[in-house]
Amino acid sequence: MGCYDDGGFNDELENGVRSIISCEEEGNRASIEEAVKVLLKGLGEDINREGIRKTPFRVAKALHEGTRGYRQKVKDIVEGALFPEAGLDDRVGHAGGGGGLVIVRDLDLFSYCESCLLPFQIKCHVGYVPSGQRVLGLSKLSRVSEVFAKRLQEPQRLADEVCAALHQEIKPAGVAIVLQCIHIHFPDIESVFLDSNHRPWFKMLVSSGSGVFENINAYEWADFYSLLNFRGINVEKVHVRGSSDLSWCPSQSSRFAKVSSKIGSTSPVMATAVASIIKSLGEDPSRDELVGTPSRFVRWLMNFQNSNFDMKLNGFLLGGIDSLNTNGEVNLNDKKLHSEMNLPFWSQCEHHLLPFHGVVHIGYLISDGYIRIGKSLLQSIVHFYGFKLQVQERLTRQIAETLSSLLGGDVIVVVEASHSCMISRGIEKFGSNTATIAMLGCFVTGLAIKASFLESIPSSAATEGQ
Amino acid sequence: MGCYDDGGFNDELENGVRSIISCEEEGNRASIEEAVKVLLKGLGEDINREGIRKTPFRVAKALHEGTRGYRQKVKDIVEGALFPEAGLDDRVGHAGGGGGLVIVRDLDLFSYCESCLLPFQIKCHVGYVPSGQRVLGLSKLSRVSEVFAKRLQEPQRLADEVCAALHQEIKPAGVAIVLQCIHIHFPDIESVFLDSNHRPWFKMLVSSGSGVFENINAYEWADFYSLLNFRGINVEKVHVRGSSDLSWCPSQSSRFAKVSSKIGSTSPVMATAVASIIKSLGEDPSRDELVGTPSRFVRWLMNFQNSNFDMKLNGFLLGGIDSLNTNGEVNLNDKKLHSEMNLPFWSQCEHHLLPFHGVVHIGYLISDGYIRIGKSLLQSIVHFYGFKLQVQERLTRQIAETLSSLLGGDVIVVVEASHSCMISRGIEKFGSNTATIAMLGCFVTGLAIKASFLESIPSSAATEGQ
Repeated sequence: MGCYDDGGFNDELENGVRSIISCEEEGNRASIEEAVKVLLKGLGEDINREGIRKTPFRVAKALHEGTRGYRQKVKDIVEGALFPEAGLDDRVGHAGGGGGLVIVRDLDLFSYCESCLLPFQIKCHVGYVPSGQRVLGLSKLSRVSEVFAKRLQEPQRLADEVCAALHQEIKPAGVAIVLQCIHIHFPDIESVFLDSNHRPWFKMLVSSGSGVFENINAYEWADFYSLLNFRGINVEKVHVRGSSDLSWCPSQSSRFAKVSSKIGSTSPVMATAVASIIKSLGEDPSRDELVGTPSRFVRWLMNFQNSNFDMKLNGFLLGGIDSLNTNGEVNLNDKKLHSEMNLPFWSQCEHHLLPFHGVVHIGYLISDGYIRIGKSLLQSIVHFYGFKLQVQERLTRQIAETLSSLLGGDVIVVVEASHSCMISRGIEKFGSNTATIAMLGCFVTGLAIKASFLESIPSSAATEGQ
Repeated sequence: MGCYDDGGFNDELENGVRSIISCEEEGNRASIEEAVKVLLKGLGEDINREGIRKTPFRVAKALHEGTRGYRQKVKDIVEGALFPEAGLDDRVGHAGGGGGLVIVRDLDLFSYCESCLLPFQIKCHVGYVPSGQRVLGLSKLSRVSEVFAKRLQEPQRLADEVCAALHQEIKPAGVAIVLQCIHIHFPDIESVFLDSNHRPWFKMLVSSGSGVFENINAYEWADFYSLLNFRGINVEKVHVRGSSDLSWCPSQSSRFAKVSSKIGSTSPVMATAVASIIKSLGEDPSRDELVGTPSRFVRWLMNFQNSNFDMKLNGFLLGGIDSLNTNGEVNLNDKKLHSEMNLPFWSQCEHHLLPFHGVVHIGYLISDGYIRIGKSLLQSIVHFYGFKLQVQERLTRQIAETLSSLLGGDVIVVVEASHSCMISRGIEKFGSNTATIAMLGCFVTGLAIKASFLESIPSSAATEGQ
């Protein structure tokens, strides 16, 4: 048994198409692989363990594909798709070729945050007013946006770059871009128990305009927002350029930086490895916005160090389980179902070194008179197994097994999660999510009690913010 | 000016990766191009017109990519991604490796209907119960589903093929598949005015199971549906195999067939061209389910024949406009805004020969005392410009210009549409949609009246069913 993944770079089939990679690109990917090995070792992992043996390969491939925008040219995309549309003259309706404003709405994109290297999600709305009797094939508005999204980015620069590129290539009366950006905000392992109001997402709405949209008070913007408004965008939340000097990335927020400083300085070897990854992607690690990125990424990564959390959990467990009776035969009739829903968890996919996160629902049976297990202990167990390199199936099983040993065996655990690797790798399945179940004891055969628990799970908590 | 798209097969850059195409595949694509030229000529189009000159190339490329599943092997996808997960034994929790049931939910896919060659959309939910201490990388559940979706399909066969392939390759305790399929239902040009209750979508929910899911009454299915239920799936709508012999495709429904028979027999030359396309994709056109497909596709295509509808519209116009005064200077204060929202339209993208459809919102100013234009005439004009090879920008402009000549010049038109080419070609942007505006007369400068109209547009009618 085990992992059969021995594919080399040029053997990879993506979507049935064999891709050609140049020698230089192959060298860059090999160098990312080496850097990822350094990071895994820094986390205390055995890089020959089957589950992560091919992780360096997968990370290199994902990062290479996810930053393909550095190797793309807007000109190549646009040139084949400018179509003549005779029609209204240049004055009437402020439209050159085929009418007035054209907007493609609700394009799902993702990008990599230049500040922390985590992927962030974007709902992208692109509009332009045609001129010169030419219109652009609609799909090209998406493709051009992708060119700049598939780089290390920051929302405002992304909007500006897409806007400038489209303006230059299609020479319209104007281009307008609105981006709704969502950045995951991981809690710090040190603070996760202290902050009960943790905001799991940072959101930002930015815009950029050229030509008739250059003035943000132009009435063309009013038209644009009218057509976005009824798609559920609240104009009030638009970020005004220059209104804040602080990065939107949670890793730069003062609170996070303060807490993180307690962890101590980051490993210089690991930070150097991250800087070499940035270089291999085609970026300059000494660019102002990127200088602090390696240490920020390493600080975040160290949350998932293999043995980080053990002592803390042991402390919790010692105080929590003494009064529970785990001996003897159990009569189901004596027992009651207890459940704790929507316990948040944060974890890292060991196959791709990318975050996955969501909620855990726990059900268990205990007899009357026995002490019900506290929510904070359940949450501790969830965090204990979350803050590691993980896979969701194992996380689910480990939580179930741990609870089973504490509670006498009748346990059901459901984990619902969104995986960054499902959106930021080749398949890019936005909105997909994963559910796993582990059942032990009475829940395996007690169909009614199991159904009662499953039906009480609240709807769609896993995908909030997606 | 003009269309610059002169890229040959091997010059195409998709996602920055140059793809290799074998001589045989190149021959197949060239043969599809020739067949598409036959279809365009059959529609009465000039195949050298700039807007459609490269349409044969684009259609061949899209069909070739959209049916890449014929050239993919499930084994290649799965082998690299089976991970050892020691854990619960085979008995407890009915879970082999890493716990119990694993479900990836809400995967957006599309496929091509074998009955009419139009793309249909799928919300795919894939689950399995691991066995043999192995789990499959989550993204592979999506990739394997894609292999079979990217073929000419029918919902139940698609579910069965994904299920059987996953079962064979990962040898789990069982595999469960649930697909929510949505097929667009175009009205016939002859019947579009007669049927005010036209259902624009056909929906079907199918399932397939192996191993512990083979029996549809197994309690494992109850677990599976519990975890789908709270994602908004209504179990009552599940299609039970064998409950109906009729195809789900609207082109096979009796009503459609009856109406279509009035149009007369389809062109044998065009039907032969479609059969040759099916063969070039790697299918057998004489397979039972495909025998009638060419004539069904041609019958549908002929709805968009260039001059099909002209006489009918002329009839409408002659009765409708006599009493309108279009002379002289207009005082805005004398005029009132009239609007007609959500007029459905159906059209075909001339760049890709794929449907686009949605709603048209029309606003116009006329003076008191003048006759307000009837909704049925507005709908006629919309259909007239819809039932052609079109682009959305031109459709918007043409409706505005036609109304302007009827109504004295103060007209605004907004078109909201979903484009099949945005989901079934390379970019696969599910949920994206496009808005276009054309403004004439007072709407260009009358900001208040324009804002009043734009703000009154109802929300999100364009994406119903998506």
